[in-house]
Amino acid sequence: MKKVVTLGEIMLRLSTPGYERFIQADSFDVVYGGGEANVAVSLANFGYDAYFVSKLPKNEIGQAAINHLRRFGVSTDYIVRGGERVGIYYLESGASMRPSKVVYDRAHSSISEAEASDFDFDAIFKDADWFHFSGITPALSEKAAYLTEEALKAAKKHGVTVSVDLNYRKNLWSSERAKEVMTHLMQYVDVCIGNEEDAEKVLGFKPGETDVTSGELELAGYRNIFEQMKERFGFKYVISSLRESYSASDNGWSACAYDGNEFYHSRKYDIRIVDRVGGGDSFAAGVIYGLLEGKDFKDALDFGVAASALKHTINGDFNMVTVSEVENLLKGDASGRVQR
Amino acid sequence: MKKVVTLGEIMLRLSTPGYERFIQADSFDVVYGGGEANVAVSLANFGYDAYFVSKLPKNEIGQAAINHLRRFGVSTDYIVRGGERVGIYYLESGASMRPSKVVYDRAHSSISEAEASDFDFDAIFKDADWFHFSGITPALSEKAAYLTEEALKAAKKHGVTVSVDLNYRKNLWSSERAKEVMTHLMQYVDVCIGNEEDAEKVLGFKPGETDVTSGELELAGYRNIFEQMKERFGFKYVISSLRESYSASDNGWSACAYDGNEFYHSRKYDIRIVDRVGGGDSFAAGVIYGLLEGKDFKDALDFGVAASALKHTINGDFNMVTVSEVENLLKGDASGRVQR
Amino acid sequence: MKKVVTLGEIMLRLSTPGYERFIQADSFDVVYGGGEANVAVSLANFGYDAYFVSKLPKNEIGQAAINHLRRFGVSTDYIVRGGERVGIYYLESGASMRPSKVVYDRAHSSISEAEASDFDFDAIFKDADWFHFSGITPALSEKAAYLTEEALKAAKKHGVTVSVDLNYRKNLWSSERAKEVMTHLMQYVDVCIGNEEDAEKVLGFKPGETDVTSGELELAGYRNIFEQMKERFGFKYVISSLRESYSASDNGWSACAYDGNEFYHSRKYDIRIVDRVGGGDSFAAGVIYGLLEGKDFKDALDFGVAASALKHTINGDFNMVTVSEVENLLKGDASGRVQR
Amino acid sequence: MKKVVTLGEIMLRLSTPGYERFIQADSFDVVYGGGEANVAVSLANFGYDAYFVSKLPKNEIGQAAINHLRRFGVSTDYIVRGGERVGIYYLESGASMRPSKVVYDRAHSSISEAEASDFDFDAIFKDADWFHFSGITPALSEKAAYLTEEALKAAKKHGVTVSVDLNYRKNLWSSERAKEVMTHLMQYVDVCIGNEEDAEKVLGFKPGETDVTSGELELAGYRNIFEQMKERFGFKYVISSLRESYSASDNGWSACAYDGNEFYHSRKYDIRIVDRVGGGDSFAAGVIYGLLEGKDFKDALDFGVAASALKHTINGDFNMVTVSEVENLLKGDASGRVQR
Amino acid sequence: MKKVVTLGEIMLRLSTPGYERFIQADSFDVVYGGGEANVAVSLANFGYDAYFVSKLPKNEIGQAAINHLRRFGVSTDYIVRGGERVGIYYLESGASMRPSKVVYDRAHSSISEAEASDFDFDAIFKDADWFHFSGITPALSEKAAYLTEEALKAAKKHGVTVSVDLNYRKNLWSSERAKEVMTHLMQYVDVCIGNEEDAEKVLGFKPGETDVTSGELELAGYRNIFEQMKERFGFKYVISSLRESYSASDNGWSACAYDGNEFYHSRKYDIRIVDRVGGGDSFAAGVIYGLLEGKDFKDALDFGVAASALKHTINGDFNMVTVSEVENLLKGDASGRVQR
Amino acid sequence: MKKVVTLGEIMLRLSTPGYERFIQADSFDVVYGGGEANVAVSLANFGYDAYFVSKLPKNEIGQAAINHLRRFGVSTDYIVRGGERVGIYYLESGASMRPSKVVYDRAHSSISEAEASDFDFDAIFKDADWFHFSGITPALSEKAAYLTEEALKAAKKHGVTVSVDLNYRKNLWSSERAKEVMTHLMQYVDVCIGNEEDAEKVLGFKPGETDVTSGELELAGYRNIFEQMKERFGFKYVISSLRESYSASDNGWSACAYDGNEFYHSRKYDIRIVDRVGGGDSFAAGVIYGLLEGKDFKDALDFGVAASALKHTINGDFNMVTVSEVENLLKGDASGRVQR
Repeated sequence: MKKVVTLGEIMLRLSTPGYERFIQADSFDVVYGGGEANVAVSLANFGYDAYFVSKLPKNEIGQAAINHLRRFGVSTDYIVRGGERVGIYYLESGASMRPSKVVYDRAHSSISEAEASDFDFDAIFKDADWFHFSGITPALSEKAAYLTEEALKAAKKHGVTVSVDLNYRKNLWSSERAKEVMTHLMQYVDVCIGNEEDAEKVLGFKPGETDVTSGELELAGYRNIFEQMKERFGFKYVISSLRESYSASDNGWSACAYDGNEFYHSRKYDIRIVDRVGGGDSFAAGVIYGLLEGKDFKDALDFGVAASALKHTINGDFNMVTVSEVENLLKGDASGRVQR
Repeated sequence: MKKVVTLGEIMLRLSTPGYERFIQADSFDVVYGGGEANVAVSLANFGYDAYFVSKLPKNEIGQAAINHLRRFGVSTDYIVRGGERVGIYYLESGASMRPSKVVYDRAHSSISEAEASDFDFDAIFKDADWFHFSGITPALSEKAAYLTEEALKAAKKHGVTVSVDLNYRKNLWSSERAKEVMTHLMQYVDVCIGNEEDAEKVLGFKPGETDVTSGELELAGYRNIFEQMKERFGFKYVISSLRESYSASDNGWSACAYDGNEFYHSRKYDIRIVDRVGGGDSFAAGVIYGLLEGKDFKDALDFGVAASALKHTINGDFNMVTVSEVENLLKGDASGRVQR
Repeated sequence: MKKVVTLGEIMLRLSTPGYERFIQADSFDVVYGGGEANVAVSLANFGYDAYFVSKLPKNEIGQAAINHLRRFGVSTDYIVRGGERVGIYYLESGASMRPSKVVYDRAHSSISEAEASDFDFDAIFKDADWFHFSGITPALSEKAAYLTEEALKAAKKHGVTVSVDLNYRKNLWSSERAKEVMTHLMQYVDVCIGNEEDAEKVLGFKPGETDVTSGELELAGYRNIFEQMKERFGFKYVISSLRESYSASDNGWSACAYDGNEFYHSRKYDIRIVDRVGGGDSFAAGVIYGLLEGKDFKDALDFGVAASALKHTINGDFNMVTVSEVENLLKGDASGRVQR
Repeated sequence: MKKVVTLGEIMLRLSTPGYERFIQADSFDVVYGGGEANVAVSLANFGYDAYFVSKLPKNEIGQAAINHLRRFGVSTDYIVRGGERVGIYYLESGASMRPSKVVYDRAHSSISEAEASDFDFDAIFKDADWFHFSGITPALSEKAAYLTEEALKAAKKHGVTVSVDLNYRKNLWSSERAKEVMTHLMQYVDVCIGNEEDAEKVLGFKPGETDVTSGELELAGYRNIFEQMKERFGFKYVISSLRESYSASDNGWSACAYDGNEFYHSRKYDIRIVDRVGGGDSFAAGVIYGLLEGKDFKDALDFGVAASALKHTINGDFNMVTVSEVENLLKGDASGRVQR
Repeated sequence: MKKVVTLGEIMLRLSTPGYERFIQADSFDVVYGGGEANVAVSLANFGYDAYFVSKLPKNEIGQAAINHLRRFGVSTDYIVRGGERVGIYYLESGASMRPSKVVYDRAHSSISEAEASDFDFDAIFKDADWFHFSGITPALSEKAAYLTEEALKAAKKHGVTVSVDLNYRKNLWSSERAKEVMTHLMQYVDVCIGNEEDAEKVLGFKPGETDVTSGELELAGYRNIFEQMKERFGFKYVISSLRESYSASDNGWSACAYDGNEFYHSRKYDIRIVDRVGGGDSFAAGVIYGLLEGKDFKDALDFGVAASALKHTINGDFNMVTVSEVENLLKGDASGRVQR
Repeated sequence: MKKVVTLGEIMLRLSTPGYERFIQADSFDVVYGGGEANVAVSLANFGYDAYFVSKLPKNEIGQAAINHLRRFGVSTDYIVRGGERVGIYYLESGASMRPSKVVYDRAHSSISEAEASDFDFDAIFKDADWFHFSGITPALSEKAAYLTEEALKAAKKHGVTVSVDLNYRKNLWSSERAKEVMTHLMQYVDVCIGNEEDAEKVLGFKPGETDVTSGELELAGYRNIFEQMKERFGFKYVISSLRESYSASDNGWSACAYDGNEFYHSRKYDIRIVDRVGGGDSFAAGVIYGLLEGKDFKDALDFGVAASALKHTINGDFNMVTVSEVENLLKGDASGRVQR
């Protein structure tokens, strides 16, 4: 069984039931999630031995986050206990023209104040096949940026393939600081995932005229940026999911990618959304699975898009689908007929 | 008041709340349902004296099933108590391109192991106007197939009109066994309801080129099959609902029928689905109501389609609509304006 | 801070969860609402000092209604306690072609039996900037009609601008009685809001050929009626929201208005509906806000339409949106992208 | 199967979840109940053909009340449809020293405004074995008092045994009016049930020094009153349940009775309360069952006490226990050991 | 109407439903609470114009906290908006011998980082009758301790009576630091509330041999400490609630007090607990009400004990009882009989 | 870390919410549990590497059972997938004198039809420290009895200590068959746990005059039986929990044991029950933990009693307590004071 590792923060997600607004809610639905944890869960569901590396406080909330990961098959042996608190994000689900809202309360979380020495990266990356991280982790704090680089060095030392999801978060750091930290880390990366906003804010590549709120996509601009990115950092693959937000209830969903040779655009799915948080993470996980399984790059991309299209129909951050469910959708059956 | 009788299994339905997957659920919504019970409830809602005939164990779960039927107006006087267990089906509601899933756990249910001698069919069919059964009941077991034929013989003896919904269930029996049993039972049937898959698997009539997953419908093929069916078994009417699965969230819904003379295609409704289980049963019930009320065959068909279109907007197996609600829709008001 | 006053009934709203029918429900969701209270809440959310004037019994249900208003920022100092009961309305949410249903149980409520002398209208309208009422309040009873006129006289005495939402309710009074009472009250009104059915049933202006259930709108007819209304009653503005009911799940939503000079049609929104009750009230409130802020009439109309489009995505009678949320939608971002 | 009839009002009961106060509640639990309906449900659970006679409006709330009765086995054939509304009572469950609270909103209900001519009492009492009513029904209105007497006359004409539960409700009528109406109706009564407060307020018999809030019981006073009651009205049996309110959470529960010969005091149960509403009704039903089954009077009394002790552990107005469950408790097993 | 002011932190309280443990919970019940906010709500329920002074962030969670206070009648005009976050506490309800657990996550909350200059204390204390604070607020941070003293100075300048609840929190500060800060603040205090642990840890008065976990109370020790406290700080009244923890489900509850003359012990209530959080705050509020109403000191104490006994039967931090409910309990009716 | 192994069935538990009866329930709470799985969860919570060995079908319900075990820390590597179904038990919680009810629907479950050859017992018991089974597993079927013996042989071959919980289930087998199978299996057992009913029905040792429903315990009888058991089968320890059922809401809970030398009776706890299912399993796990940690036998017994007393306050079959929580209770703090 392949061993895959992700590193990052898992937060307590507090979401209002149904379409309630924050000021209406008398209860919050509780799950735990975060970009890299979400990737680990997807990969565990696909049958891998997936390890999520993080730090969580020695209290019951930290334990509940661990139990949530274990429930969905993730190995939690490398999670260190200590520090102050579990980060939180509050989520209010939008509908129609009312957007979903996220309020973050993640400062001072255990992982944001963790030391690199808290982790035994040699043990973690021993016999590992893949390491995935995102631009969120180094954005948490200077310590976390340092920790991320230490992890990357260890991964490379052990010959592990590395992927990144650039994931720019404007309330965690400025574009300037992001560029400073992230361009430095790109030397360790084999597979780079990120949309045009990420490319600009994190790596400084300006896309063309694409206006993301208009719902129109300019694939030509993507190709141009991907070529620059590959040239500059030597990525093996450059990949982006493409979201067309018709409304908070309906999205178009596809992806494009460049392998240094060809530029691909995947099939597009029109999705009635149940929960779109974690959509990008499930896409990254699907692509990683495809590549680890030795699929053609185009097929890996299609697997990632189909897997993440399904994610949008599932509550919570985690994508709870099996390989065979993704394959059924890839075979073309999007009819939603009852399976008895 | 007209007396109508249906015979079959009522199961405990355990469904995950909202769009939760089975592995996420910490509670199940509980209703009770099953093809023939669903037909009985519809007919009770339309104002008939509807009897559901079955066997249920002498425990609280069996009692709860009976109470559920009584709540919605079905007469339970002919339900026999005894046997091992209430059959179960687990339901996970799909969304968008993720299909709904049904996991059956119905083996060894009381009705599947019932004897014909458990029932007093002479009393049951005395003064009855209609008897409806489906292809599910004889598929449960050899005993259940025998029981079904005994019921049919008694119904005919009492001059009761008989309808069947072919309802092929591949996990209950093979197509070969289905054909063997069902073609024999067709001699008792006046009105035959079943889609093209049923026609092929249960009665052996191969439809044309129609590809049900593509969402395209080939009405011509239906007409051809219906003619063969009528010729072979002497049905008075042959009828099929027509589902176009755009996705798990949106379906097209209509019906076609043949009366030996003309082939009809009903109005089609585009439905945003709340719960599609029991859609076919509510259609059968609507057609039976139309015929019992002496409507034109085309009007009975339209009544059935409108009634069952409404079913797709109602949670649970049962169609809880009144005649006047169906008639409002038939009059053309599908605008959904608030009724104060 | 501007002081705005509305007068009317707040009812206990008992709605079935999700899409449950009344006969399925084992619990009711509880909120409190009613046309004029809904307007007050919107205006409180927009930052005004909004007073709701009514009468509620001296029991815990009356207290709960008051607390519900306070929670969402409405001043309840002018609510008088006494009388028999809190009026009730039962709500079942429709879906697709199944309409929502409202069952009223509001007779004998405290406000319907209140005396004008219960209220100190001089205190209420002192320093007030706006007074809004609707055609529902005078329809409750003769006493309530008298009370409404006393309020209107006091408002005018204090130089307060007055708006009305005609809101014809056929189960409260006949068209004849409505015309008798309401045409008399129009002398106090500056801004008149009402759709074509209201115009006909309440004021006697016959619209053209527009068929409201067909979903087609005939703007020309509106302009003609608006001109007649303005001429007859001297309104400053005549305004109507325009609902196209594609189904219980999807509506088109816009508005038209006449300022004595020009006839305007606003932008139209296609809405996936979460809860459409209170949509018209939130429109009235949005227009009032726009006018009180001194916006151009067309801009005030657009603000009202955008605010009320958002209302359709929010559960309950109350529109819980801020000015900045409405402005974001007005700026053109209806993409529903997650706001982090 | 014995036929038993009760006549009265069934209300919509809206109760706050758990121990929530009215002003905290965002949902209400929904059941339907009322003294005489509760008696009918108990008797249906005991295996009788129990008819509840009432009037309910022709809307969905009226239908839901009927479905609720049917669910629990009561025959609703004699329920007339029409009138204004379903009466309501709001319930807040107390705990420890905080009492439960009931807010009534039952004026103008359909049954309170029903005519005697709405009912075919000859059909209703044909072949009936028992008729039960309570002091609540004649208290609803003058019409309801007249209706009650017409029912009683018809019952007597058909030779039906009659029981009453005096059930004084101070917010429905004064003690003076109660005495005037009820002493007149006692001529039709065979079995009289009522506690000392009822005896005083409804029939004018003053109990001794018993202070009901002190939790102390003076059985001697009861015997004295019972003797007077029997002498005055010629009752066959006079019966009272005895509640010792230690707190809202814990009660002592027993009964005393007089058969003209001996005075009995039953076994006493100390109960941890789940829901005490309907406790008295379940006691009446238990005694009726005992007498109809031909048990010794003392055994009938004990059956009633055991049945109603169990009621206090069940949510809602209805007592959902079987004869065998009551008999197990009577046999002495109050240990609550798990029954597998 | 009397004006009362409290100053402190209001937190988001996330509690597991029923008796669920943190690691079982898939949702949290949401209320908002905190010592001084709880006191303000009690006083608002008793009919006063109660102001809660605090700082909350300019996001939806901050707004929800404000709306929660408004719902229950507290004036929020003096709440300043800004800062980082709403503090959180997680609550798991115990049962029997399993204790309730609280996990705090309150560091870096807006109020803990507020400046004294954020508040206009002259406006706040103008015409105020009472100011209440607790030992929690100065424990939050040095800034908060400074802020508290500024508030106290302003209160005294305006001649406002001051009460404190010592409320030692060991995870906020050490006993040493608590003594340093709190003994200094006692110069402003008229009424001092605090149990024996508080007296020792916060003010340095060692109680006798009383062992609080044993459930035995040594009143003599209290009297001795109270005398010392009064002598040292010149308090007008020294007061303590007395909790006997029989288990997490059942407590004894009373209070003792000293007025410089006599030492009083109140009536004791044995309570079946629904929610004991906020019990002490509701006691403080009850005593404040009693003193402000000019009751005898002993009567004020009894009012506080009765009010807070009722609090233990109510979910959430807030005590939602009226003066008349407290008075009914004081009159001796603890029988919990249903109030109709 | 110590490795412990248990073998048995894990069932889907469907329980009614709160105190609802089966016929009232519209949803079921979902957990998974069963005697041996419950023991494994306790031991995982105590920090051991706990393996649960079983067979579950290859469907989503089987997967959900596995995820439930993983969530609470149990290793599921030795669970085999295949067979027909997940066994079910329905649970209705009693209160006061109303007993809890269990309805089993476990026939034909995967584990009851599993072959010994499905499992690699050499791998399973390699390096294991303890093996626990119960009398339920061999009772499931002949195959399951054979499977159990094969497991026992392998455990002994690997030098693993073996404990049994006799757990007689009268609806699974007769006392005669139980004796036949179980007396044979006792040769492999080191530690025997079972109450007096088990001793009689499973092993044939008749206890004295103890009447379990009376709530009185006759310890002398236990000692006598334990001596016989030890002599006959050579157990190292013989142990029984002692339950005094005061009612369904309150129980006394203690244990007695014999080590061949002394007879011990533990401390007794009076428990207000939240959920008593799994109480015995948590006791067995506590004793196993105590013995594996090398505690004195009396201390191990006390640890088991304290751990299982806490279980009665926790919902679900699983005992979710940590070693430190048990130790706090052992230290004598049963006061239930809030832990902050």
